Amino acid sequence: MTLRPALFALALVLPLGTACATSPPQKALTMQDVLDASTPADWRTLDPAQTLYLELASGRVVIELAPQFAPAHVDNIRTLVRAGYFDGLSINRSQDNFVVQWGDANGEDPAKARPLGEAKAKLPAEFVRPAEGLAFTVLPDADGWAPEVGFVQGFPAARDPKAGIAWLAHCYGTVGAGRAMAADSSNGTELYVVTGQSPRQLDRNITTVGRVVQGIEHLSVLPRGTGPLGFYEQAGQRVPIRAIRLAADVPEAERSALQVMRTDTRAFADLVESRRNRRDDWYVH
Amino acid sequence: MTLRPALFALALVLPLGTACATSPPQKALTMQDVLDASTPADWRTLDPAQTLYLELASGRVVIELAPQFAPAHVDNIRTLVRAGYFDGLSINRSQDNFVVQWGDANGEDPAKARPLGEAKAKLPAEFVRPAEGLAFTVLPDADGWAPEVGFVQGFPAARDPKAGIAWLAHCYGTVGAGRAMAADSSNGTELYVVTGQSPRQLDRNITTVGRVVQGIEHLSVLPRGTGPLGFYEQAGQRVPIRAIRLAADVPEAERSALQVMRTDTRAFADLVESRRNRRDDWYVH
Repeated sequence: MTLRPALFALALVLPLGTACATSPPQKALTMQDVLDASTPADWRTLDPAQTLYLELASGRVVIELAPQFAPAHVDNIRTLVRAGYFDGLSINRSQDNFVVQWGDANGEDPAKARPLGEAKAKLPAEFVRPAEGLAFTVLPDADGWAPEVGFVQGFPAARDPKAGIAWLAHCYGTVGAGRAMAADSSNGTELYVVTGQSPRQLDRNITTVGRVVQGIEHLSVLPRGTGPLGFYEQAGQRVPIRAIRLAADVPEAERSALQVMRTDTRAFADLVESRRNRRDDWYVH
Repeated sequence: MTLRPALFALALVLPLGTACATSPPQKALTMQDVLDASTPADWRTLDPAQTLYLELASGRVVIELAPQFAPAHVDNIRTLVRAGYFDGLSINRSQDNFVVQWGDANGEDPAKARPLGEAKAKLPAEFVRPAEGLAFTVLPDADGWAPEVGFVQGFPAARDPKAGIAWLAHCYGTVGAGRAMAADSSNGTELYVVTGQSPRQLDRNITTVGRVVQGIEHLSVLPRGTGPLGFYEQAGQRVPIRAIRLAADVPEAERSALQVMRTDTRAFADLVESRRNRRDDWYVH
């Protein structure tokens, strides 16, 4: 069992919350207390059919897909991945305190662009989805960007009960599908990961497709591009992608054995509380 | 005139705010509109007596000190810097989505620690200061961590009017003085910069001394340390510091010619509004 993804998942959400406790918890647990007391039932194994491995020279980035939020995009990305579309392409953009992005550097040149094969060139925008049917763990604190924020099956998410919609929140590690000016101009061939302060202004403006659960440090340390929007100006600065593979297509022995903490449990509620108001001895306030 | 620090300063604050506009602005300006319309009076030059240059092999990091928030620490840091205390020391920690930290890697070994010279070993904690006497530009949106957030002379800050106190907010680029368990155990020899999601839980728990205004990308890309808290495990992984110098001690021709946007102007209020609700054509919401 690896604790790291759980810590990371937590880091994704707390910036959305606040520190104004309304009532004291029954007992003041630290995060470590909560993790130590967790049981196997508090954890889940990633679904290999919904897990991508982005393989770089520096290591593997593990991405959990969110078909419940972007079914058409996730389906298309899986089709692209299984056809080896991304293998040998590159990371083309690293903008400080914002995102790292990869895809086909020649994608806009019809003569040079890599063919999409069985994948679709055109998809509907999937910015939001109906809130109904989602098990949503609401965080107790106010958020500036949405009426409610919390978690859906591990993913940091937001919800507008009045409008009856939900969406993935742009947090550290959130993965989205880059688009041009048209709302429906993304198809999953251009993907980005948030590597800075939660850019929540992107929420409901772009299709989010998943989140990084391990290895984001292979992306967050990449040299920042000096061109507009952090694109690399020289082809030689781009970072080669060895391959993107679906975990299900990787021999079991080569898979990353990861469990992540469930976000619909009492243990997770305790974990959130331990992070809303820190109980560790170091903290004065 | 360099626009970059202004954009950066802005990036520091917006995560604290929200997107729930209460009334529409008179006209919908984009950030570019605001910058294009700004006048020299909307900008100010950094004070060389309160500006540090952290010189690395990869380039220069420019830090603006905040004596109005931590007079004793800033005074001590200036003393250390002028004596060359940091020259030849190293960056010893890079924790993903959190901080980069530097100082004397042997600081805890009395036999090897670099002597402090005229600087003080012991300082009072400067976590907060009286709100009175500070020109505080309040942001219009709610914040989860403080009754009010905004800017004081360019620095992202928070205020509690009831308690009559103010403090620097931990945002991307905020510089603080590392401490051990005792609240008054920092003296400015260990400094950190926030390189991830605003760790607001640190607010009022540690002494903040300034902010990076240029060159943070030399810090944010550093390989993450694999030891506890992101410390480098091997001495060879540490990143050497060529020198830290006070801008006032650097020949004028070698100084970074920077202006930053004032945060107490109509232009800055327009800039905040342009970022609270994006007007650029790309945005749908």
